[in-house]
Amino acid sequence: MSAVSDHEEPWKLTAAEVLPLLRSGELKVLDLAKSLLTRIHQRDESVKAWVWLSPSQILQQAQVLDDIPSAQRGPLHGLPVGVKDIILTKDMPTQYNSKLYQSETPINADANCIITLRQAGALIFGKTTTTEFASSKQGNWHQNHTANPHDLERTPGGSSSGSGAAVGDFQIPVALGTQTGGSIIRPASFNGCYGFKPTWGSISREGIAQWSWTLDTCGFLCRSVEDVERILDVFQVMDDEPIPKEPFSLKGAVIGFAKTHNWPAAGPGTEKAMEKAVELLKKQGARAEAVDLPEDMGFDNALKWHNTVLNAEGKTSFLGQYRTDTKLLHDDIVGYVENRKNVSRKDQLEAYDSCARLRVTWDEIASKCDLVITPSIPDEAPKGLENTGNMTFCSMWTMLHAPALNIPGFAGENGLPIGLTAVAPRFRDRHLLHVARTIGPLFEKEGGWQRKNVESIPIRQPVRRSSTGLRST
Amino acid sequence: MSAVSDHEEPWKLTAAEVLPLLRSGELKVLDLAKSLLTRIHQRDESVKAWVWLSPSQILQQAQVLDDIPSAQRGPLHGLPVGVKDIILTKDMPTQYNSKLYQSETPINADANCIITLRQAGALIFGKTTTTEFASSKQGNWHQNHTANPHDLERTPGGSSSGSGAAVGDFQIPVALGTQTGGSIIRPASFNGCYGFKPTWGSISREGIAQWSWTLDTCGFLCRSVEDVERILDVFQVMDDEPIPKEPFSLKGAVIGFAKTHNWPAAGPGTEKAMEKAVELLKKQGARAEAVDLPEDMGFDNALKWHNTVLNAEGKTSFLGQYRTDTKLLHDDIVGYVENRKNVSRKDQLEAYDSCARLRVTWDEIASKCDLVITPSIPDEAPKGLENTGNMTFCSMWTMLHAPALNIPGFAGENGLPIGLTAVAPRFRDRHLLHVARTIGPLFEKEGGWQRKNVESIPIRQPVRRSSTGLRST
Repeated sequence: MSAVSDHEEPWKLTAAEVLPLLRSGELKVLDLAKSLLTRIHQRDESVKAWVWLSPSQILQQAQVLDDIPSAQRGPLHGLPVGVKDIILTKDMPTQYNSKLYQSETPINADANCIITLRQAGALIFGKTTTTEFASSKQGNWHQNHTANPHDLERTPGGSSSGSGAAVGDFQIPVALGTQTGGSIIRPASFNGCYGFKPTWGSISREGIAQWSWTLDTCGFLCRSVEDVERILDVFQVMDDEPIPKEPFSLKGAVIGFAKTHNWPAAGPGTEKAMEKAVELLKKQGARAEAVDLPEDMGFDNALKWHNTVLNAEGKTSFLGQYRTDTKLLHDDIVGYVENRKNVSRKDQLEAYDSCARLRVTWDEIASKCDLVITPSIPDEAPKGLENTGNMTFCSMWTMLHAPALNIPGFAGENGLPIGLTAVAPRFRDRHLLHVARTIGPLFEKEGGWQRKNVESIPIRQPVRRSSTGLRST
Repeated sequence: MSAVSDHEEPWKLTAAEVLPLLRSGELKVLDLAKSLLTRIHQRDESVKAWVWLSPSQILQQAQVLDDIPSAQRGPLHGLPVGVKDIILTKDMPTQYNSKLYQSETPINADANCIITLRQAGALIFGKTTTTEFASSKQGNWHQNHTANPHDLERTPGGSSSGSGAAVGDFQIPVALGTQTGGSIIRPASFNGCYGFKPTWGSISREGIAQWSWTLDTCGFLCRSVEDVERILDVFQVMDDEPIPKEPFSLKGAVIGFAKTHNWPAAGPGTEKAMEKAVELLKKQGARAEAVDLPEDMGFDNALKWHNTVLNAEGKTSFLGQYRTDTKLLHDDIVGYVENRKNVSRKDQLEAYDSCARLRVTWDEIASKCDLVITPSIPDEAPKGLENTGNMTFCSMWTMLHAPALNIPGFAGENGLPIGLTAVAPRFRDRHLLHVARTIGPLFEKEGGWQRKNVESIPIRQPVRRSSTGLRST
């Protein structure tokens, strides 16, 4: 008799919930995989989170994992992981949502992070949709028609669109994302999941499409803080200070609230979420303190410098693609290479050096709080699938190289999820997660949005995918 | 009748010399390729600069290039380029000199810089030897028995060993290298060629093995300053200031001489080279000024911080390889991942932030001179092939993200080449090269070492390669 009988709907489980079951053999990897495939089968025509997925390959690999004796199983044994389609996987094509990479032949190498995940026992499940080369624009090939699972007429955000939608829709417990502006935090907020962008450089970028070497950061989307912790263990992402065994207590804790100079961009949903968060934390005995980011130190220039770096580094990063065929590239990417914004070397150095100084200032400011809470996005996911949303609130933390976690739990005017971002000084990733293990469940329980009713997520007017769909080999 | 009759020994030509001939068709790519292959055939058993080279593939591609009508030829049409074997080439294996990558199947993607070179018409010739993952240590597979062409008992330097040896030995006009410490400048100095490490980030690193994202820089080895300029044109590496058409005049120029706090490491060869350089420049009417790098600003800590970054980022970069099989990795790489040096996050941040400040200070100091001259290496290449030499003098410029050019021309006690490094502020790459176009020929002509007698480079006791040799498909 299959052990799955105890867990009739394993697709609902988080990574932290499912890992002990897989390790002990109580749940077979094959049964988990089948359960997720069934869920995907029911949902994919509406959500379209996957650009490549081969059920036969998944089931075969699941069987291989099940055959590993319990004592030899890795820390992520059997964990299904979705992979943003700008990250190399040796057994699946990597298409970058670019017409330049239409080939269905896999590039026969794994990104360094994929090697690490496979060695830990993860089941690399499939490739999730992205904007073109994870830039801010829609892809020019698949058109990235991925929908927000909570409202199919709304965007799931980007550029880690499919990773956000698939995790938010219970099609996969964990998916890889990357963030250069707001590409992890934004889809996490829009889809009601956790999204973690660790401190810059925490995870190898080898084998991941390059846009900005100063900003690009690999991270994860999932449905619990513990999930992030399990994965960071595997990647050896540690703080200097050991993390206490006992849960973080909010009594007497100092939680900073940074509205930032972007606050005018906040809509009613995010305004309410920030108010609610203050109220909930105070009720638990925490002090909520406003965090000022002084203009005279340059924080008000953060977006300008971020944009300068994106343009200047995009000029270098996309040169090979540009020289291959400009007609097959989004015009914005062509614009980077042609330096249409006239970014000078002086501008570039000013951005590099000012941001380097600002990182030190940020660490000092953030060290005065146990955690800083700040908006993730202006409001709930906007209507339409063309625009993946605004990254205004995310870019600063990417530029500061700070760890940032989207915590879901709040709701917008239309009942769609809204998250808030928890940030910390650089390399206090584990401390941030320790505090978030207390705050996350609080926000999820009392913030006003709950992902409980997952079965009732409506599937409206399924549209046939306009380009290459799933492989069903 | 072949046009090659006018150029009987095209293997001797620099990139700048050969490009107009190839473009006009005066010299066929096929004839150049054959000439280089003959040279390689004569020399390879002794120098062993190549880890992969397929004559049939080269000749086939040369023919394809020759068939392109003159008007459609790219700016690097037919230019043979050697590629350090940590850079992906879709038609040749990439083995990183690692037992983990013994496969002879190419990874079917080009690094972004290779795409750009191919689109410009370059002939990707073969893969050159490297230390393991371009780290400071010998490879664990091929053992990197590459010899210095000027004395087969001496090292050609590393980690861009084969690129330095092949260019210095006239087996190829240009080769790609990468520098994290001194991996371009050092082999350039030891082999008597130009080696250019541009400002950090000037050339995409996508598809190049990652060790340190803060330091890794792609650059070139070649035999003239004009060669570097031709290649930087293709990569769009430009300063803000336009470069004057007329040659740089040394009359009244201010040339800084930075002995740096590493000066005690300089041997008699480098001491003499620095003295000679001052003398030669003064004779041309330049002012030679000592450049101080004040200790209280932290320059004396540069090597310490460089080392901290290498260790901290190596811990992340080599994690995938480590998890795959520690026994197939050099123990030093295992040590990075295991953090044997106990580098803390605090140390890592101190190194990041201090170096960021130092970059600004360096730009200010260097801006007061037309160019700064500094040692490349302690002395001529040491005996033995196991140790690829000392990077003491190179690391600071890599860490400062400054453009650095090895200029050959001086000789050590044993008559082997010694170069000096020209450095400039960040993003003054083209200015540096403009000045070097005047200084380079001066050093080469009057510095005391000349590469003229290339035919007489002795081939002593050829040793059979211990592992996989050249492909002769």
